[in-house]
Amino acid sequence: MRQSFLATRVRKEVPVDEVSLNARLLIRAGYIHKTMAGVYSFLPLGLRSLNKIIGIIREEMEGIGGQEVLLNGLQNPEVWEQSGRWRGDADEVWFRTQLRVGGEVGLGWTHEEPITDLARQIVHSYRDVPFYLYQFQTKFRNEERAKSGILRTREFIMKDLYSFCADEEEHKVFYEQCAEAYMRVFERVGIGQQTYRTFASGGAFSEFSDEFQTVLPAGEDVIYVHKEKGVALNKEVYTDAVLARLELQREELEEYPACEVGNIFTLGMRFSDALGLLYTDGRGTQVPVYMGSYGIGPARLLGVIVEMVGSDAGMVLPAAVAPFAVHLIALGESDVVQGAADDLYSALTDRGVEVLYDDRAMSAGEKFAESDIVGIPRRLVVSEKTCAAGKVEYVDRATGEEGRLLDTAVAGILQELSA
Amino acid sequence: MRQSFLATRVRKEVPVDEVSLNARLLIRAGYIHKTMAGVYSFLPLGLRSLNKIIGIIREEMEGIGGQEVLLNGLQNPEVWEQSGRWRGDADEVWFRTQLRVGGEVGLGWTHEEPITDLARQIVHSYRDVPFYLYQFQTKFRNEERAKSGILRTREFIMKDLYSFCADEEEHKVFYEQCAEAYMRVFERVGIGQQTYRTFASGGAFSEFSDEFQTVLPAGEDVIYVHKEKGVALNKEVYTDAVLARLELQREELEEYPACEVGNIFTLGMRFSDALGLLYTDGRGTQVPVYMGSYGIGPARLLGVIVEMVGSDAGMVLPAAVAPFAVHLIALGESDVVQGAADDLYSALTDRGVEVLYDDRAMSAGEKFAESDIVGIPRRLVVSEKTCAAGKVEYVDRATGEEGRLLDTAVAGILQELSA
Repeated sequence: MRQSFLATRVRKEVPVDEVSLNARLLIRAGYIHKTMAGVYSFLPLGLRSLNKIIGIIREEMEGIGGQEVLLNGLQNPEVWEQSGRWRGDADEVWFRTQLRVGGEVGLGWTHEEPITDLARQIVHSYRDVPFYLYQFQTKFRNEERAKSGILRTREFIMKDLYSFCADEEEHKVFYEQCAEAYMRVFERVGIGQQTYRTFASGGAFSEFSDEFQTVLPAGEDVIYVHKEKGVALNKEVYTDAVLARLELQREELEEYPACEVGNIFTLGMRFSDALGLLYTDGRGTQVPVYMGSYGIGPARLLGVIVEMVGSDAGMVLPAAVAPFAVHLIALGESDVVQGAADDLYSALTDRGVEVLYDDRAMSAGEKFAESDIVGIPRRLVVSEKTCAAGKVEYVDRATGEEGRLLDTAVAGILQELSA
Repeated sequence: MRQSFLATRVRKEVPVDEVSLNARLLIRAGYIHKTMAGVYSFLPLGLRSLNKIIGIIREEMEGIGGQEVLLNGLQNPEVWEQSGRWRGDADEVWFRTQLRVGGEVGLGWTHEEPITDLARQIVHSYRDVPFYLYQFQTKFRNEERAKSGILRTREFIMKDLYSFCADEEEHKVFYEQCAEAYMRVFERVGIGQQTYRTFASGGAFSEFSDEFQTVLPAGEDVIYVHKEKGVALNKEVYTDAVLARLELQREELEEYPACEVGNIFTLGMRFSDALGLLYTDGRGTQVPVYMGSYGIGPARLLGVIVEMVGSDAGMVLPAAVAPFAVHLIALGESDVVQGAADDLYSALTDRGVEVLYDDRAMSAGEKFAESDIVGIPRRLVVSEKTCAAGKVEYVDRATGEEGRLLDTAVAGILQELSA
């Protein structure tokens, strides 16, 4: 995409009303726009990055047999009353509204109830399980605080997967497969090394759940990490009893602030019992389906990545989540430079490379400063100097390596970009 | 995808609580699930079709220079108060809810206000226009009636595009480009011949707007069509004065029921004035941006298509919107048939063909009846008979042509499928 065409520009001024780095930087870079406290829109660059993350998660969910669906924001209180989550503990998280024709409805903040209801149309006999449904769908949560940019918002797309198994044994196999798929997601988006599978409270569902926590100064959680074993405990379960059970010594663990990037729950028969999601087993007995739920917030992932790779001077995004594969920058407006840059842009885009091409009339200093903020990790620079040498300058911002002159032949450039 | 893996099955019974054909058929086919009145979830097959339609619309919007964004459901009343649409005429369409921290917010039923607010961050000088932002985003509308299946729902994804131009002249050029892109969308999803660009009321914005109306018995609107000229009038503007102005004679027009599948509006300076979206022109004067808005509902499109190609006995979807390119059906469970069908499935999927493969143990009659409901237009049948002949039977359901025996070599089959 030509940058002269891109609707947004990098903003020089740091937004004064944002305390979190991720929001400050992403607003300046033209990735997001603040609609109101805790509510952000995605602009063209930000949506491209969000969609890259969504694409990676989708691949991993398809890889473990997930089938994609799309449920609703509007929630029928009936099914939530059956599980006891329409009122009570969950009261504060709900946004509730009224139908014009009469009757209260809610806005979904999770989807165990409606998907259990839906699964009643699917499940009859033991032949109908297991199956795994997932979605990328907008959740609404009536959060009290909203000061962490896109790490915690009142409205966000969530990837939530729900598993429907015959029994605990079948469930455990899938649960572990999903945990492994989650770790692959975190590795692919570049936060694998700092992310730990973390024992956490199982809430109302079971004794424990598994969180995936990324060590991060801006994180709202506190975890205790056993680096050698690669496991961690959330502070909420950091007790002598739990430590003894997991055969961990307090002195082997280090305390870190962390941000939860994923959470997987064994639901068991909590919802299938409540909503009557039963199947007939081989002996003709009606048995509740054994369920699990598995969540990742793609926008929070983007926020965590930005917190890790960013500062108010800019960021270097992992290639897998950058909005474009390469930032092509033309310096100077001579016909030679413009012609060479145009040719390179065409040659690369023709070969399917996603290029952001800064074709604007601006100084080199301004272009580089903006490019630092936009955060694309690989840069190609065309200038009078490179044209005179018949070359193009290549900068891998992630390594900090000095720019290198490459031949302008596309094959060689493609090789560098895919290295 | 193997049908033994697909979570949903075709339902024999017609849902008793659905009056509209599209909902009855899509529920039976396992495309959608009714969450509550006027609220439907998309299941794997339905989401695939919805995403095909979204993909076609996206291509056409990118083709006219649209840049994709993603705005929010939650709406800040402040910006709607500035335009006067927070209370008053729009009162009934809003879903409103309360922030836990205090304050009322709404759920977006359209996005002129928030996108005008957002555009204030983008627009400074005349160099910043024109640009065109669009999204696929979930709208909430507090509809009084909800009896038309997915033709009119309380929650639906809408493609809404907003144009920001320097003046009326620039706007008119884009407006026509968008109208043409809309007609290409309708042609590509298979309803082009029955869809007319239709003069309609401009509402609060301008004298006229352009609707795109598809002639359909189940449609809620009434239009008057001039077939020769390929134009139509919505009943709401079917007056002598308008007819005279458009140089149309009452007797040349035919009345039809129709369903609105798209709507484009000249907004002019209605919102840029109200919200202060100004740019500095070449002479240093502050000028309001000249705006337009352009909507298509992908799920309604799917509903219209189903109404056109469906009956309670089944449907033949246009290839462009079918969830899979071909329905491969294995008849019989002998090793020969299973082996041949498995081979064909692998060969086709390896070449990127999207295949739904009915590998289940069921009678031929049941399989064909289900396949009729699922609606994939092209069918490949592997049976003892075809295997004995070293062939596979190909049925193009759209032409109603008898099945033809093809060689099992994939190249020839691919040729038929792309014909």
